[in-house]
Formats: sequence, C-alpha cells, structure tokens
Amino acid sequence: MIETLAQHRPGIAAAVEQVIEEASGHLGRVSAWGPDFSRRLLDFALRGKMIRGSLVAVGAGVFGCEPNDDIYRIAAAVELVQSFLLIHDDIMDEDRVRRGEATVYEQYRRLADERTYKRADRFGESMGICAGDVAMMICFEGLLSISFASDTKLELMRLVSREIADVGIAQMADVANGHTSETTGEQEIRAVYRYKTGRYTFSLPLMLGALVAGAPPDQVDILSRWGELQGIIFQIRDDQLGLMEDGVDTGKPAGSDITADKQTLHRLRLFSAAPGSRYEPVLAYFGQPVTPGELEEVREALQELGVLKEIDSEVEGLGRESDTLLSGMTDLDPDGAKVLAAIARYNRDRTR
Amino acid sequence: MIETLAQHRPGIAAAVEQVIEEASGHLGRVSAWGPDFSRRLLDFALRGKMIRGSLVAVGAGVFGCEPNDDIYRIAAAVELVQSFLLIHDDIMDEDRVRRGEATVYEQYRRLADERTYKRADRFGESMGICAGDVAMMICFEGLLSISFASDTKLELMRLVSREIADVGIAQMADVANGHTSETTGEQEIRAVYRYKTGRYTFSLPLMLGALVAGAPPDQVDILSRWGELQGIIFQIRDDQLGLMEDGVDTGKPAGSDITADKQTLHRLRLFSAAPGSRYEPVLAYFGQPVTPGELEEVREALQELGVLKEIDSEVEGLGRESDTLLSGMTDLDPDGAKVLAAIARYNRDRTR
Repeated sequence: MIETLAQHRPGIAAAVEQVIEEASGHLGRVSAWGPDFSRRLLDFALRGKMIRGSLVAVGAGVFGCEPNDDIYRIAAAVELVQSFLLIHDDIMDEDRVRRGEATVYEQYRRLADERTYKRADRFGESMGICAGDVAMMICFEGLLSISFASDTKLELMRLVSREIADVGIAQMADVANGHTSETTGEQEIRAVYRYKTGRYTFSLPLMLGALVAGAPPDQVDILSRWGELQGIIFQIRDDQLGLMEDGVDTGKPAGSDITADKQTLHRLRLFSAAPGSRYEPVLAYFGQPVTPGELEEVREALQELGVLKEIDSEVEGLGRESDTLLSGMTDLDPDGAKVLAAIARYNRDRTR
Repeated sequence: MIETLAQHRPGIAAAVEQVIEEASGHLGRVSAWGPDFSRRLLDFALRGKMIRGSLVAVGAGVFGCEPNDDIYRIAAAVELVQSFLLIHDDIMDEDRVRRGEATVYEQYRRLADERTYKRADRFGESMGICAGDVAMMICFEGLLSISFASDTKLELMRLVSREIADVGIAQMADVANGHTSETTGEQEIRAVYRYKTGRYTFSLPLMLGALVAGAPPDQVDILSRWGELQGIIFQIRDDQLGLMEDGVDTGKPAGSDITADKQTLHRLRLFSAAPGSRYEPVLAYFGQPVTPGELEEVREALQELGVLKEIDSEVEGLGRESDTLLSGMTDLDPDGAKVLAAIARYNRDRTR
C-alpha cells in the first residue's frame, strides 16, 4: 500500500482499540460473551489493511485538516463498519479463512466443536450474525463519542446510515448474481462496482473526512463522484488482475473467479463476444474448476476477442473523467491535489 | 393488548410507512432489490403488534408530552429495530413462519425456488442477513430525520446503539444456551430476561419517550429500572403460561418449550428440585417431543415440588419493587402513574 495511506495505520489502530474498549464495559455487564466478542473483534479489525479508515484521514487532509484523535476515531468507526460487513459477508460466502486466520463465524464454529455444543455449524452462523450486528452498533457508539459539533456528528451518521443501507442492497444484488444461472446484465454489475466498491470504499470515507475538515458542499460532491470512479477503476483492475495474472496478490488462487463464475465486466463481454468464434468453447469453463491450460485459453480469448482492449479503453475514459473532477476541486490544500493524483495513479497502474 | 398501547398503532404505522418510503428512494437507485425489500419490510413491520413503538408514546405521555409526528417517528424507528432483530432471529431459530406469514429469509428462499436459483436455502439466509442489516440502517435514517434539537437526537441514537449492542450480546448468550447440553446458570438466564426482554422491550422505548418529553435524568433512570422489572415479570409469566396453559396465545403449541428444552427459570428450578424425588423421571422429557400425559407430569412436578410457588413469590417481590419505583417517579403527569400502573397490572395478571 502507498505511504499516503499507510502512515495513518497506527493512529487508526489505537482508536479502534479505544472504541472497542469503551463498549466492552457495558457489553461485559450483559454476559461473558461480551468481552469474548470484544477480543475477537479487536483482533479481526487490527488485521485489516485499514485502507478505508486511512481514506478518512486523506479526505480531511486534502482539505487542510491534519489528522487528530477525532479524525482517527471516525476512521476507526469506518473500520468497524468494514468488520461488520466482512463478518456477515464471510457467512454468506462460506469463507472460513480471512486475513490469514479463521473468519469470525468459523471461530465460533470451532469453539462449539471444542465444547461439544449441538450443531456447531448452526452455532457458528448464528453467533456470526449477532457478531456483525454488535460490531455495527459499536461503530455508531464510536461515532457518537467524537467531540465535533452536534450537527457535524449528525451529518456523519446520516451519511454512514444511508451509504451502508445502499451497500446492503448492492450486496443483495451481488448475492443474487451468485445464485442465478442467467447472465447478469451490465447495469447490475456496474451497480455492485459503484456501490460496494466505489461509494463504500472510496466515496464514504473521503466524504466523512472532507466534511469534518469543513469542505464546501460542492467540493464534497465532486470528491464523492471522484471516489466512485476510483472504486470502479479499482474493481475492474482487480477483476482483470484476478483473471490475467498468476500468483497475484489478490488473495485468491489463479482462475478462482472463473471457477466461482464471478459476474464481472470481463465475463459479460466475453460471453457476448465469444459465441460463433473459435473461442466459444471457453465459455463452458466458467463455473467449474479450471486447469492451467483452460485458464490460458480464457486469457487468450479475452485478448484475441478484444475484450481486454475494450475494457482498458473504458478504464482510461474513467481515468480522464476522474482527472477532470480533480481539477474541479478548487478548494484543496496545495498538496491535496497531489495526494489524490497519487492515489488515482496507484489505483490505475497497480500490478498486484 | 390494552387500549393504553393500542391507541398509538395507527400513528406509528403511518410513520413506519413514511420512514421506509423515504429510504426507498435511494435504495431504488442501487438495484431493483431495494424497492423489493422496502415492500417486504413494510409488510413485515406493519404486521407487528407494535408494543415497543407504543411504549415510546407512553414514555413521552406519562411525562406530559402528547404524541406527535416526531414521537411516532421515533416509535417507528423502534419498530424497525424490532424488524431487524426478528429478521436475523428467524434465521438463527430457523423459523419459517412469523406473524402468520413466511419469515423474511423464507420469502427469499421461496423466491429462489420459483426462479430456480442455485442453493435456495443459502440464498434465503444470505438475503435475510442483508435484509436485517438494511432494516437497521433505515431505522437510523428515520431517527436522524426527526425535528428535535440535535443534542436530543444524539442522545436518542446513543441510547439505541448501546442497548442494541447489549441485546446482541444477550442474543449470543441465548444462542449458546440453546446449543449447550450443560444446564445454564441462573445468572445467564436472568441476563437474557433482563437485556432481551426487560431493557430492550420496555426500558429502551420508555426511556426514548421520556427523553424527548424532557423528563429529568433521575426520573428517566427510575423509569429505566421500572421497565427492566416489567420485562422480567413479563418473561417469567410468559414462560409459565407456555408451560402451564393449553392453547394459550403464546403463539406456540403446548409443551413446545419443553421439546425445545428452552432454558427458563422454571426449568432450572425443576432440575435442581427433582433429583432424588419421585418426579425425577420427568427431567428426561426435556429436549424431545412430549405427549399430553408427559406434559401433565411436568406440570404436576412444577406444582408439587413448589417451583411454581417459589417463582410466584419472586414475581410478587419484583412487583413490589416495581411499585416502589413507580412511587419514586415524582415528576409524572397526573395520569401518568395510572397508565404505568395499568401496564404493570396487565403484565402481572395476564392469562394469555
């Protein structure tokens, strides 16, 4: 990760610890499951890269507001939202490993195994659902404890509630895409990119930071749209790296998106271009385990049918749009434009 | 339900509709799953008895604040919290029917069946998890849109976040009680009564109402403790009705708590009193389907071993404590004390 983001990690980690610690007091009065979960949540949250939290500090920084305890507390809340969503997502995706360790619901499943509870799988999922719910409430408690003006706090909470509601609906669309055998339309795919990656990962934290830095509303709006574009570019690049690169640090083995039949823009375009061509047979590889040879064929098809080129040119177009938006942010701190440009460059050019 | 509560239902229902309608706008921009869920949520929320929402109006009313649009909006938010929790609880309990219709996750499972999606069960659960999450965010959006002073709104949100975090931990304890074959201790059982029924169902809505009515903090504290006691009394009565009455309107068939081996205070006391007595064999009936004859034996054991008498006397003690608290609420509206006394009386004496 680039230094612009990584520098904020220690400050955010300290705030995450503090916010969870504060909630742990009252959770412990309910049951021993309270402090038990606080420890698991802290451990889980601290193992993240904290990109979203760091973007809160970036959003404040580019409008001239140096990071302070309150800004790191907002960043911590954003990281707890991420924990909440991941805890629930892992149940939905049946992922047992995350960030190199057992996912939260898997931890509870193992605990049930150790203690010979009845129906360990069910126990794990039920506890995981509760765990995500509690994490979200701790996030709100953290936001409520910052020392900004009341109206600013309300504005932050309004933004978080609204965007996370939208993320929930985007997640529904994503879940449905994973269960249907019909080809998902471009609009649905783009909605997932826009809301799950764009607005949630980039726009929301940047806007929260800009708001507390007192950025004018029109500037916050431009930053929001700029963030969306960054997310969409990030996601398309991420899909492409997952398809085209071996041993890439996407956290997944080569070809796993093909096996999972993940509904990406690349897949959609390939399924529209391949029928009738000599590459038609590769479509049958989607949705099942692929051999290295089959993976090579898919890659060749994406190349030869012009899918990669077409998508690259789209990404370039999005990049130009993003540059135009950046030059419209006239209230940025002198260094602010450089910071945002560096993030955009990293996003576009990353190879892993 | 008593008239004191039922009179607020139309006002709350209208507010629920409004709050969901407002969120539906932005949810619909994400995906068609947004308005689809809004309809399901509205339908689900409107089928509830709205006891918790009504208690918000009661909390305001006893301190002299007549119900208005904002109070009903807070009540609506409380009802949406309840929808959120029930949507998730139904997944945990694998309940397919609620309020006379399919539970939310079951609705999605059926949809997947109709559309021949892959793995309909999984789809139902995943969508149900998202659905609960979105409902919670809509609740916060509703709270944020009321027109009270900013500091009052923040205080309401602080209370909701904290209490719902506690409910999540109490739910964890409850889930664990259902999976372990060890006898749950009295402390754990009481914690579930206190937080899941007492503070959540009674204290939280009453406190929200009292706060917006401008009740002094010491009075809100007394009301909070009074609410806890009401919830504990309610839950113990509910357990007893479920065990002792046939065809009782607990929404469950006679003996179902025995079959489910529900960890109640009655069960705990029976398991402590029966060993060595002639009633020892009835303990084996817990955790499996019971015949009417076996149910009768359990009832006789509860009676003859003095469990019912012991618990009745505890409930009486809690009732006296509640009366003392009530007389300590010196700032109540002239009619307020009567309203609270009527709720306490109903709670203690109800036979179904």
